[in-house]
Amino acid sequence: MVRPVEQGKLNSIADVEGVAVGHVTLEEDLSETEAVRTGVTAILPHAGNWFEEKVPAASFVLNGFGKTVGLVQIDELGLLESPIMLTNTFSVAAVLQGTMNWMLRENPAIGDSTSSLNLVVGECNDSYLNSMRRMAVTPLHAEEAIGNARTDFAQGAVGAGKGMICYGVKGGIGSSSRLARSGEDHFTVGVLALTNFGRKEDIILTNWLADEPAPDKPDGSVIIVVATDAPLDSRQLKRLAKRAAIGLGRTGTSISNGSGDIIIAFSNARRTPHQANEAFEASRILRDDHPLMNELFQASVEATEEAIYQSLFHAETTTGRLGRVVEKGIFN
Amino acid sequence: MVRPVEQGKLNSIADVEGVAVGHVTLEEDLSETEAVRTGVTAILPHAGNWFEEKVPAASFVLNGFGKTVGLVQIDELGLLESPIMLTNTFSVAAVLQGTMNWMLRENPAIGDSTSSLNLVVGECNDSYLNSMRRMAVTPLHAEEAIGNARTDFAQGAVGAGKGMICYGVKGGIGSSSRLARSGEDHFTVGVLALTNFGRKEDIILTNWLADEPAPDKPDGSVIIVVATDAPLDSRQLKRLAKRAAIGLGRTGTSISNGSGDIIIAFSNARRTPHQANEAFEASRILRDDHPLMNELFQASVEATEEAIYQSLFHAETTTGRLGRVVEKGIFN
Amino acid sequence: MVRPVEQGKLNSIADVEGVAVGHVTLEEDLSETEAVRTGVTAILPHAGNWFEEKVPAASFVLNGFGKTVGLVQIDELGLLESPIMLTNTFSVAAVLQGTMNWMLRENPAIGDSTSSLNLVVGECNDSYLNSMRRMAVTPLHAEEAIGNARTDFAQGAVGAGKGMICYGVKGGIGSSSRLARSGEDHFTVGVLALTNFGRKEDIILTNWLADEPAPDKPDGSVIIVVATDAPLDSRQLKRLAKRAAIGLGRTGTSISNGSGDIIIAFSNARRTPHQANEAFEASRILRDDHPLMNELFQASVEATEEAIYQSLFHAETTTGRLGRVVEKGIFN
Amino acid sequence: MVRPVEQGKLNSIADVEGVAVGHVTLEEDLSETEAVRTGVTAILPHAGNWFEEKVPAASFVLNGFGKTVGLVQIDELGLLESPIMLTNTFSVAAVLQGTMNWMLRENPAIGDSTSSLNLVVGECNDSYLNSMRRMAVTPLHAEEAIGNARTDFAQGAVGAGKGMICYGVKGGIGSSSRLARSGEDHFTVGVLALTNFGRKEDIILTNWLADEPAPDKPDGSVIIVVATDAPLDSRQLKRLAKRAAIGLGRTGTSISNGSGDIIIAFSNARRTPHQANEAFEASRILRDDHPLMNELFQASVEATEEAIYQSLFHAETTTGRLGRVVEKGIFN
Repeated sequence: MVRPVEQGKLNSIADVEGVAVGHVTLEEDLSETEAVRTGVTAILPHAGNWFEEKVPAASFVLNGFGKTVGLVQIDELGLLESPIMLTNTFSVAAVLQGTMNWMLRENPAIGDSTSSLNLVVGECNDSYLNSMRRMAVTPLHAEEAIGNARTDFAQGAVGAGKGMICYGVKGGIGSSSRLARSGEDHFTVGVLALTNFGRKEDIILTNWLADEPAPDKPDGSVIIVVATDAPLDSRQLKRLAKRAAIGLGRTGTSISNGSGDIIIAFSNARRTPHQANEAFEASRILRDDHPLMNELFQASVEATEEAIYQSLFHAETTTGRLGRVVEKGIFN
Repeated sequence: MVRPVEQGKLNSIADVEGVAVGHVTLEEDLSETEAVRTGVTAILPHAGNWFEEKVPAASFVLNGFGKTVGLVQIDELGLLESPIMLTNTFSVAAVLQGTMNWMLRENPAIGDSTSSLNLVVGECNDSYLNSMRRMAVTPLHAEEAIGNARTDFAQGAVGAGKGMICYGVKGGIGSSSRLARSGEDHFTVGVLALTNFGRKEDIILTNWLADEPAPDKPDGSVIIVVATDAPLDSRQLKRLAKRAAIGLGRTGTSISNGSGDIIIAFSNARRTPHQANEAFEASRILRDDHPLMNELFQASVEATEEAIYQSLFHAETTTGRLGRVVEKGIFN
Repeated sequence: MVRPVEQGKLNSIADVEGVAVGHVTLEEDLSETEAVRTGVTAILPHAGNWFEEKVPAASFVLNGFGKTVGLVQIDELGLLESPIMLTNTFSVAAVLQGTMNWMLRENPAIGDSTSSLNLVVGECNDSYLNSMRRMAVTPLHAEEAIGNARTDFAQGAVGAGKGMICYGVKGGIGSSSRLARSGEDHFTVGVLALTNFGRKEDIILTNWLADEPAPDKPDGSVIIVVATDAPLDSRQLKRLAKRAAIGLGRTGTSISNGSGDIIIAFSNARRTPHQANEAFEASRILRDDHPLMNELFQASVEATEEAIYQSLFHAETTTGRLGRVVEKGIFN
Repeated sequence: MVRPVEQGKLNSIADVEGVAVGHVTLEEDLSETEAVRTGVTAILPHAGNWFEEKVPAASFVLNGFGKTVGLVQIDELGLLESPIMLTNTFSVAAVLQGTMNWMLRENPAIGDSTSSLNLVVGECNDSYLNSMRRMAVTPLHAEEAIGNARTDFAQGAVGAGKGMICYGVKGGIGSSSRLARSGEDHFTVGVLALTNFGRKEDIILTNWLADEPAPDKPDGSVIIVVATDAPLDSRQLKRLAKRAAIGLGRTGTSISNGSGDIIIAFSNARRTPHQANEAFEASRILRDDHPLMNELFQASVEATEEAIYQSLFHAETTTGRLGRVVEKGIFN
């Protein structure tokens, strides 16, 4: 019954001008029982230098059973100064290292004549299909994912999503977008989700046909990245992030104990220079009470809900370690 | 597709042993244009002395455009020591005063030989139907609501819900409950909601028939009280409260800017004495990783979702100030 | 050794242009044993209409054993739209009511054609000297305190500070200010504290002479209001509020369990209109990395520390209920 | 004037039974200008298996300009399941990796048959003395620091503290402890600080003699670890952590913008097994209103204050990259 909000042209997070997504997907059989099914995904907040041109950002931790890196500084300063990286739980260190290597190479002053650097890495646990203890991801894979970024990126069982399971079927990377309109103005909200949560019996879709769900995994999680070109500050972006939690809940999950359900939102409408001669910074933000704000909220809910479903729709049946198979979900 | 959780016997918050709810409903025509359509609702956490026997509690502010009183101390100490009172936005002071009067009378030592007292009052804005500026609620009404408490309480356009509007039709008080089972153990989660939010076009129910929704109100809100007899501490109750937010989102709202969407959760499984000779307190809490926790989470989601709908199902068409009419929602 | 920051002209919160403070002090002997020693203090954020011209604000709860009203909405929207009122713990309802009466009279549209209203009331427990259970403060006293506001306000045992005790001697209202300079720019940080905490043995001053401290009270607390004319947004004001906690700690307290230590900070450099035709709002804020920010932080620490001491220096020996006497602290 | 609390026997965090600290210190001249002056410090929470026997924990972010890893899960579950590791800002990834390697080796079930693992790494920026961009710390150094842990550990310019600067002189690792007594009961609070913040002019010590302070560094920070054997849960440990912030402020800093001032507190009085057959867990915690709680608060303030000074007292004049010298502070 809900009036739907219009999708963006690509129906992905890349509808937010400047945002691009890169994947590295790792697939290798290590032995009769052990197998690599994992990867890295990079979300670039804009097309410039992320450290020199920071963007407003915020996070919302819906359920903190997770190891996401980088939220402390985002919460304090309200700024993102790096790509947002996604991988498996045990590859956070490698991806952190690789992203740092990239950023230090691009920015010779960091850690020398200027300040340090805050990086953001989110993770889900893909150990049902992936031999996660082997830690196949290397720092170079993180750099490669950044370098691969494009607007027409793949979804499903790719990048960090290669080994993920969602609602008992194959999960992974999903994305969607919505337009918030009011009079002449329109803004885009794009969402990318790394989905790895939920039992089959929890999904709310009524036309579900898969008969052989994967067994419950020990730790599910979902990382949701919300991007927008609406001029919002970090306080408002936290509000947008909370609405993504509502969109997640719409798909059926009750947010189980062992799930790290973490949302990071940013706006690239305005860029804050790393350094400036001026003491003051001019900004222009949307009024909280303007109807556009509620449109953005609804866009965040709906784009998140659809991004999660898109991760299922794009995924493919995947065989992993110990011969385990996770099937693609079939929906009418 | 979601496997439903079993309801409690009363399908209300009063399925949690000891919890009772009292209403005072005020209805008076003050002039040709002005009218009182408001009230007070009291939720009693258990059948004992609330100050002498405090219970673990927590809050979650989903959207803080609201004036709820009492959350600061709950967040610090993790304890509830009073009833939870609900009323309209401009009657918070009167209800705070009346509840204090009741509590001071029952507890002569408070503010004399022992410490002070933390009270909790939640509110929504009923000014579309109710002449809220007239502040018809008096402190005595709060005392009366406490005194009226019972387990077979009314729902719909009663008590604090008398003048509320939800999804464009008559809202008010709704309640529901669910049982969380695991082996021999079972616990109850009961929810009471004061509903006053949402546009007609936002509701997710597909069999909606009302043709003349009330116009958008300036400020919607919803106060959700989650009670349980499961032995949870305040940290865990905050987790339960966050799941109520998911249940709220399931009904269709995107949590609009002007809505104070606030959740308070408590457990009356264990009572902490106001004073004790012992330095230490023994407790027994549910392990976070036990399957019962996820059952409780699902119970919180579902009982909240249904409590909101029950507020609509029980409501009656109400005429208020300026001759305004808000119709009962019709669902097939 | 710390390089001191320069004080403002009045060395009070009123050095922030537009800020004014009003008191109502109540003193009456009710019987041989019972006595009224309490009051109300109002801090006005600027000289305009507070509801129509809101100002950025934030809070920091150092220790939440307190009943302060109004922080939920400040945390969500980052705006203050009323005076900040101070009183005793049991008079929060009366002061809330009186402040609402004033605001509704001044703003006929509130609760009618426009939205509701968020009020802020902080409190400390003065029940050692004041017969707090008698609740002598009425709503009219709150209005009177607002009406009394001026820039050359009294300090010590006045207004809400009439019955307060701090570090075993007479506490109450204290204020101080500091200037933050950088090149041509200078901004003011003003602090007002309502002090009611600490044992004699905790104070850090080395030239303390009082020999007969008041006995430990059941609940101490301190409410600290930080005002500035520096252009800071709500995120930055929360940072300023945290520094006030540091200033409080400098006076010697270890922030005891029963103390509601709550800080509210606002900037009146920019006012946000209640309603606007434009979707967007232009603002200009100080860069977090500019040296002025650290100057403001130091100003917040130092003005808070001194405001607490000023509450002692200005206080007078006061006799209250049960013949209890709290002496003025003597310092060399 | 403040009544001092008694120190523990070692006057270090190792007075908390079971806590041990290990360092790896790296010192190498890479060229005429570049030099390694850095290291790793490991704080072990108890003498058992940290993953199998988790302990209650909490964090408080006083100023979030920092990159500490692992707080999200501590905030959600209130448990620590690993050592707390400290290093320089650019070595977080290496230390994260090494700590994971250690933990996976010790616990073959992690990431295979049981859930994942939350690690904690704190950091400060030592780039004034250390060629931080060279990232000299390797994963093996982290393992070595864990393996080196002992109760009679070194302080000053060692481990993660090798290259740190505090108040314009040589900082690093400092530790102290206090006993909280009440009747028969006594508990220990131990603090370890990694100090890298403050200008010379900020220190509050009056007998300061150093004449040539190091120039202001771009980013200071301090990581404070508070350990106790008092039976506190995570909510109470957050309260203890906030008091450490007060102790930090007592040394003179106004908590500058670029400083990541982060506090992590844990109690090893009770251990929560990773898995259990029982649904419920019995616990015994200190009552918040017992006088011992205030003693613990004071202990946290004072042990933190002294730990920071101890880092200065133990430090040695250190020469680093670009021939820069940071002198030992001289105090009478």
